[in-house]
Amino acid sequence: MSALRFPNLPPSEPQGCDLLAEERAKTTFSVHELSTFLYGDAFLERQARLLALIEKEPAFDKSKRHFSGRSELFAAALRKDHTLIKLAQQQKWTPEDFGHAEQLIEEPGPFGLHRVMFMPTLVSQCTEEQVEKFLKPALRYEIIGCYAQTELGHGSNVQGIETTATYIPETDEFEIHTPYLTASKWWIGGLGKTANHAAVMARLITAGKDYGPHAFVVPIRSMEDHTLLPGVMAGDIGPKLGYNATDNGCMWFDHYRVPRISMLAKHSSIKPGSGEYIKPPNAKLSYGTMVFVRAGLIGTARRHTAKAVTIATRYSAIRRQFVDKDSPKKLSKQQQQMVVETPVLDYTTQQYRLFPIIAAVYALSLTSSEMVRLYYLNVKNMASGDFSLLADLHASSSGLKSLTTTMAAANIEECRRACGGHGYSNFSGLPTILRDYAPNVTWEGDNYILTQQTGRDLFKSFRDLVSKRAAGKMNTDRNTNPTLAYLNTYLDNPNLKCLATMVSDFYNPELQLAAFGHRSASIIVRIVHALDVQKRSWNSMLVDVYNASVAHCQFILVRNFILGIRGQLPQPDGDVDPASALSPASKEALKDLSDLFALHTIHKEPGQFLMSGYLDSQQVLLLGEAVLELMEKKIRPNAVGFVDAFAFPDYILNSAIGAFDGRVYERYVEMATREPLNQKEVVEGYEQYVRPFTNPKGLKGHTMQARL
Amino acid sequence: MSALRFPNLPPSEPQGCDLLAEERAKTTFSVHELSTFLYGDAFLERQARLLALIEKEPAFDKSKRHFSGRSELFAAALRKDHTLIKLAQQQKWTPEDFGHAEQLIEEPGPFGLHRVMFMPTLVSQCTEEQVEKFLKPALRYEIIGCYAQTELGHGSNVQGIETTATYIPETDEFEIHTPYLTASKWWIGGLGKTANHAAVMARLITAGKDYGPHAFVVPIRSMEDHTLLPGVMAGDIGPKLGYNATDNGCMWFDHYRVPRISMLAKHSSIKPGSGEYIKPPNAKLSYGTMVFVRAGLIGTARRHTAKAVTIATRYSAIRRQFVDKDSPKKLSKQQQQMVVETPVLDYTTQQYRLFPIIAAVYALSLTSSEMVRLYYLNVKNMASGDFSLLADLHASSSGLKSLTTTMAAANIEECRRACGGHGYSNFSGLPTILRDYAPNVTWEGDNYILTQQTGRDLFKSFRDLVSKRAAGKMNTDRNTNPTLAYLNTYLDNPNLKCLATMVSDFYNPELQLAAFGHRSASIIVRIVHALDVQKRSWNSMLVDVYNASVAHCQFILVRNFILGIRGQLPQPDGDVDPASALSPASKEALKDLSDLFALHTIHKEPGQFLMSGYLDSQQVLLLGEAVLELMEKKIRPNAVGFVDAFAFPDYILNSAIGAFDGRVYERYVEMATREPLNQKEVVEGYEQYVRPFTNPKGLKGHTMQARL
Repeated sequence: MSALRFPNLPPSEPQGCDLLAEERAKTTFSVHELSTFLYGDAFLERQARLLALIEKEPAFDKSKRHFSGRSELFAAALRKDHTLIKLAQQQKWTPEDFGHAEQLIEEPGPFGLHRVMFMPTLVSQCTEEQVEKFLKPALRYEIIGCYAQTELGHGSNVQGIETTATYIPETDEFEIHTPYLTASKWWIGGLGKTANHAAVMARLITAGKDYGPHAFVVPIRSMEDHTLLPGVMAGDIGPKLGYNATDNGCMWFDHYRVPRISMLAKHSSIKPGSGEYIKPPNAKLSYGTMVFVRAGLIGTARRHTAKAVTIATRYSAIRRQFVDKDSPKKLSKQQQQMVVETPVLDYTTQQYRLFPIIAAVYALSLTSSEMVRLYYLNVKNMASGDFSLLADLHASSSGLKSLTTTMAAANIEECRRACGGHGYSNFSGLPTILRDYAPNVTWEGDNYILTQQTGRDLFKSFRDLVSKRAAGKMNTDRNTNPTLAYLNTYLDNPNLKCLATMVSDFYNPELQLAAFGHRSASIIVRIVHALDVQKRSWNSMLVDVYNASVAHCQFILVRNFILGIRGQLPQPDGDVDPASALSPASKEALKDLSDLFALHTIHKEPGQFLMSGYLDSQQVLLLGEAVLELMEKKIRPNAVGFVDAFAFPDYILNSAIGAFDGRVYERYVEMATREPLNQKEVVEGYEQYVRPFTNPKGLKGHTMQARL
Repeated sequence: MSALRFPNLPPSEPQGCDLLAEERAKTTFSVHELSTFLYGDAFLERQARLLALIEKEPAFDKSKRHFSGRSELFAAALRKDHTLIKLAQQQKWTPEDFGHAEQLIEEPGPFGLHRVMFMPTLVSQCTEEQVEKFLKPALRYEIIGCYAQTELGHGSNVQGIETTATYIPETDEFEIHTPYLTASKWWIGGLGKTANHAAVMARLITAGKDYGPHAFVVPIRSMEDHTLLPGVMAGDIGPKLGYNATDNGCMWFDHYRVPRISMLAKHSSIKPGSGEYIKPPNAKLSYGTMVFVRAGLIGTARRHTAKAVTIATRYSAIRRQFVDKDSPKKLSKQQQQMVVETPVLDYTTQQYRLFPIIAAVYALSLTSSEMVRLYYLNVKNMASGDFSLLADLHASSSGLKSLTTTMAAANIEECRRACGGHGYSNFSGLPTILRDYAPNVTWEGDNYILTQQTGRDLFKSFRDLVSKRAAGKMNTDRNTNPTLAYLNTYLDNPNLKCLATMVSDFYNPELQLAAFGHRSASIIVRIVHALDVQKRSWNSMLVDVYNASVAHCQFILVRNFILGIRGQLPQPDGDVDPASALSPASKEALKDLSDLFALHTIHKEPGQFLMSGYLDSQQVLLLGEAVLELMEKKIRPNAVGFVDAFAFPDYILNSAIGAFDGRVYERYVEMATREPLNQKEVVEGYEQYVRPFTNPKGLKGHTMQARL
């Protein structure tokens, strides 16, 4: 029984549920149709099937999550992961089912890295013998693993790790050792308290030579009682901004001996006895996994952004603030006309903050699918010896990981702030999204460092193109490679000017694409000139390289959005283009978002577009009018519909202010009654820390009423 | 005894303490001199005196803070606040001492709002009788108060609050009542569990008329035993992104009667019996407090930014990543030359991220002092009936609150990310700064809404100026008011062009100021034209209004920086200009920062500067060269010195990676050993949730070694 009793009061008029109903009545398209466009039927059916199972399982209950400290979060996550594995085994879930269930529950836990990092490492690097020894028990969760690459002093530069694995011919063993404090394994998910094995990246040293990082699977905790094995010291690295249900861990090895089979040997290995190193085949093969992981992160960016903007948009349709004197809102109720405050979603600043984020979700969705398609195409090509897609894919996946995760982190925080004070409450659901999403800008390649890879490839493509053009090949790959197409167009006429003279001209997608292509090309040309002609150092160009990567990747996002809703993006063999099922109304609504995505991106930071010479100042002002028109007239009526189409059940959002039914204030107050501090009327520390000031002699009848 | 034992290993070479020593040896100025410039001697002496007391008091120990959940944080904060009050009484601290002590301890607690909101409300609004009844017991902490303005459905629009206080002539009482759920008091610091009184903002209703929000001091908890009084329901609103040591609370009144004296009556009051309302004098008087609070927030923005960038800069001088092939770093140790990774502070991207933040701290410092000076000048002026400064001050304090808190929040997060993965660990100290700083962008005026006040005033100034110029007064206030000066200059020549042709031209402060003034004026002119000539609605111009406010306030920051280090800002009567004590070396170093602050602001978002016509694309590129030159040649050697000058003792930073001595990794590992999960070798849930998979039959001797 809570000491805080919920008063039996309604919110003042108008009610949230009525407001959302009005919004939904205005929607010009079928919400289900857009959901299907985004996810496909199979996903939506799977979500409904899994949700029914998950919502009724007590181990997956989210009601305590907002209140839990680290230790409680971890304990609950261990139970959750255990229950999830049991359920998966019982229901014979596919890996897709499992991944989808984890998205619904949305609490990264101690067994998570076993599934997403440890096992994939085994799958790609085990010999047949190692499959029996490591992978099969791992699939049964007898072996629970973690992926121990990062060190206390080494993150992005994997080549710099310091842990050693020295081959000892006499015993046919490796000695794993931590030579320095900076070589401590650190940040390793699941290592802190849970894993009994680790895939350790260590420098292979054999026959007196250092061959750099290789993977070794080593036992770290006893299979009998989970105590640490002699020679291994490990623990949890402590609390973090988020991800506190996961036991990120640290580990030291003290001349720890493991048998030769510990080295994952599918690609490279050691000859027993001599310790001779047998080289891996084409190193490029390993890029493929990175591309896949990074393409996946675009999807993650989409999902978390979509959650945040669903909450912020629904709440902004309900939250009212001030009366807009130019167009006051009136409410008719019981024959009375009363002026009420304006929903914040009607203010153009709120629209400028939120609507481009809605548009970004659709942009991320289309580019995420396209990157996955290219990944599989590349895998197929590489299998037949064709590596032509790899460099481009590696480059764009690096830049897109950087851009899209940076966008998502900024957009989540913007959504949180757009909810005013309530965005600061855990009950809004937004702090959790913010905290747990934050590491995406750092892991799988820091967002600044990654852009160097994109830059290098773009500059190489440009130099190759210039050579080919010098040799008279003016149309090299213009029709098949969009990067080369915009570089060619730029080289054809570096002084190209936009011809727009009125607002409606900016709704032309070809014009938008030309602006992004010209801008990107102008930056690339300038950097290559600085590097090759002015002989500037690479370090001095890093800020420009970052900007080049952003410009190129914005081009990709805009292009995939434009082509995707037209049904002009290639589809994987045998797949129907999801755009083919769109009704004209849906296509029109998506076109509005595509226009807003492109034009808002320019309007917010027009500098480089102006510097490229394509746009002039008057055009940027006109384009601003187009942004305003799109927001106020086209997107405003559909805003709630657009976020409803993201199809998040309330169970996922776990938000007082973003639930489907709009009962913002009722749900919020109800959550507050469950705050642990509210379970006693008088707080624990009162006697010791408050009463000595307020009633030092412990007088009875010492009330304010008596004083007055 | 921790189950995680600290290995006796040093980090690999070079050591953090040696690296910081090298950095400090390179510093071209006296660190103490810059500290004194920023804070003055009195502040630094007070800090040393208070720190000696505070560091040895167990209630102020910070070592557990990184690990504590909400309930522990709150319990510790209650103890901390109790101890702090006792210490203040015992040491006879001044209010300045108390405030400074709170900055050192840096944990907003349950008694905080009593001091910073409740008591100031009493001071400014109590009659003499109320001083006796409320203020004096409050000064002794018998009354512990909170300030109950915000409601569940009402934040920024104070006029819209719904709680009522109806005067009942029969009993000479007010009836405080919560008519709707949305009228619940919400977010009220200290109300949740601690306060026994509240200053409640409620709509005064008397003699059948609604006079809008007024302040009432009402008892809410029993002075005898701290239970809630009949008619009042209150509790804690639950966990938040940060500020979890404070009991932000909620409250409902059920026809709660209080005597007439509860209404704070210095400015407006009720005649007993008739209930006649007696009007307040000039309402403008109350603006003064807002200006003061907002000026204070600029100082808060400075302090938190400075903490974050101290941590990030020191760590970036120690953290090494990759080898810069164009200029590899070598280490001489024991007659050996070895190539080591490059400190990340040497990379231009890291410089572009961090150095402008260092510069921003100095910019905020100078503008904060200037706003405080203007506040006191205005108070003095108003006392003699001169309100001439008020509107300008209200406008610039609104815009500066918006701009500087937005900058600070972004800069803190940038510092966190610039520390890579370790910025995500609580032990870096950065997540705490981020979480606790976040509400600054929302409270005391939402950062978007506030800019409308700045815009309104700027547009009014511009219209007045145009009228005066039309009447032939071309030089109105040009020499005394910087806003009118730049507007006049623009109107003299809207087509003014920057004459810079080489990098060094951009180091001219007059040129920088002209760029910011011209840009701001061009936006103001355009908006006023849209509003007055094109008759555009205010709502349709809000995004532009926001940009105008940012542009104007960036001008103020740049101007105060330039004038402040030259010793050209006016000083309060009798005060010595802190710039007068600067040596040439310090002045030169500060000039580098001032240049970087101005030029980086343009370089990062050049769009509006280009659109204003003052700068062209070639000049923006040249200006980029100036930014690079400043970063690599001028600021890099002084970076650690600049942040050392912020004079934060390690006790304030509470950071493993940002401490003065550079022992990053040793301190980090030591903190991890104290993680609660590490106190047992085998985690609590093992038997129930892990062993069923890994050793289901509980076999003895079931080890991996046996399997191999």
